[in-house]
Amino acid sequence: MLYIVGIGPGSRDLMTQEALDVIAKTDIIVGYSTYIRIIRDLIKDKEIVSTGMRGEVARCQKAIEIAQTGKDVAIVSSGDAGIYGMAGLALELAAKAKAKIDIKVVPGVTASIGAAAALGAPLMNDFCHISLSDLMTPWEVITKRVDAAASADFVICLYNPRSKGRPNNLREALDIILKYKSPETVVGIGKDVARPKEIEKITTIKDLDEEDVDMTTIVIIGNKNTYVADGHMITPRGYTL
Amino acid sequence: MLYIVGIGPGSRDLMTQEALDVIAKTDIIVGYSTYIRIIRDLIKDKEIVSTGMRGEVARCQKAIEIAQTGKDVAIVSSGDAGIYGMAGLALELAAKAKAKIDIKVVPGVTASIGAAAALGAPLMNDFCHISLSDLMTPWEVITKRVDAAASADFVICLYNPRSKGRPNNLREALDIILKYKSPETVVGIGKDVARPKEIEKITTIKDLDEEDVDMTTIVIIGNKNTYVADGHMITPRGYTL
Repeated sequence: MLYIVGIGPGSRDLMTQEALDVIAKTDIIVGYSTYIRIIRDLIKDKEIVSTGMRGEVARCQKAIEIAQTGKDVAIVSSGDAGIYGMAGLALELAAKAKAKIDIKVVPGVTASIGAAAALGAPLMNDFCHISLSDLMTPWEVITKRVDAAASADFVICLYNPRSKGRPNNLREALDIILKYKSPETVVGIGKDVARPKEIEKITTIKDLDEEDVDMTTIVIIGNKNTYVADGHMITPRGYTL
Repeated sequence: MLYIVGIGPGSRDLMTQEALDVIAKTDIIVGYSTYIRIIRDLIKDKEIVSTGMRGEVARCQKAIEIAQTGKDVAIVSSGDAGIYGMAGLALELAAKAKAKIDIKVVPGVTASIGAAAALGAPLMNDFCHISLSDLMTPWEVITKRVDAAASADFVICLYNPRSKGRPNNLREALDIILKYKSPETVVGIGKDVARPKEIEKITTIKDLDEEDVDMTTIVIIGNKNTYVADGHMITPRGYTL
């Protein structure tokens, strides 16, 4: 059996009971070294297959090979494994290899949900997730999505908002968003959510450039009704109060 | 202290450790009767404040009043409390009442993530959440969002897709989506996810009308690359395999 396990954004607290149970009962754990580190006290006595960044394909293939020998193995993935994580890749590779193994995806709390809870309740109305990483999706597809989402006043969660290799993607995305949303639109930032150096901050689109935004940051851009009260970022559901 | 706790889509397995801990240590639990029933074995010895459907405002006000007396109280909400749940309303009402209480939102696994994991990995690329309930959002705002999301080829998660009071909303939304997406686009359905009568099914937009879709169902409409392999619904992240 191959388990693909979302371990949540960082802390043990935000793991599901099922993720904890599967990791406890599985002898072989496969994962990116950072995620292996996050759960190291849970996997002390286990066989670990750890690889560096961008080793996603090799990692999944290794896990599939192990499962094909009849052993149980778990691939761990941060947040939810099915949201920009390892679940899709593992399922694709297993199908392509005609691996004939049982696969179970164990859901988790994705980074946007963790950040949203820490910020207040910014996702109470229709929202979308867009990754600004153009490594695997063409930039024109991404910008089209940013444009569509802003034009219909979605709350927008940006994953992978900025990296050294893509220093201008966030700025370009914000310029598109500003065609439709006010510069005063409330923005929430969650950095290293549920990890030791966690930071949450509430700002506006016009002041976002001054913030420390990188690959471990989630940026949540409100809709036109999003506001701040008592330090919380709130998008109204629409109740008459 | 007022906790607003997402209890996941249904089963104990999909609750986070933090949600379990908060419920265990809090003496007064407030919630809609269905959610109280789901966690009844966890709250046997506690004071329960349970209300029926559409009692959301009264429920939150009651919880805020209890917290103002200095007691700890937890509002439970299914899925993630911040996604079409109780978190936003509780924060809004507390701010409006100048309640001066500490509030903590405890994140959870929302229904779309639970359904996605059971279906495979349909949310591996950019996606959005749209509720088709027009009780609190004007239908023209909702249809504009459906149009924008389909035009930019988002994966689309529909919450509250159909109810007795709104029998035609799903059909109208699908007609808009069909302006941009093929009738053969893969659609995943999750009904009563992580509950005893759970059903998952994979179909297409053109065959969706024949399915049993109601308020406890999540409908996930793929993007143009979404496909089915080994019974799993997969939206590729974009790796070259």
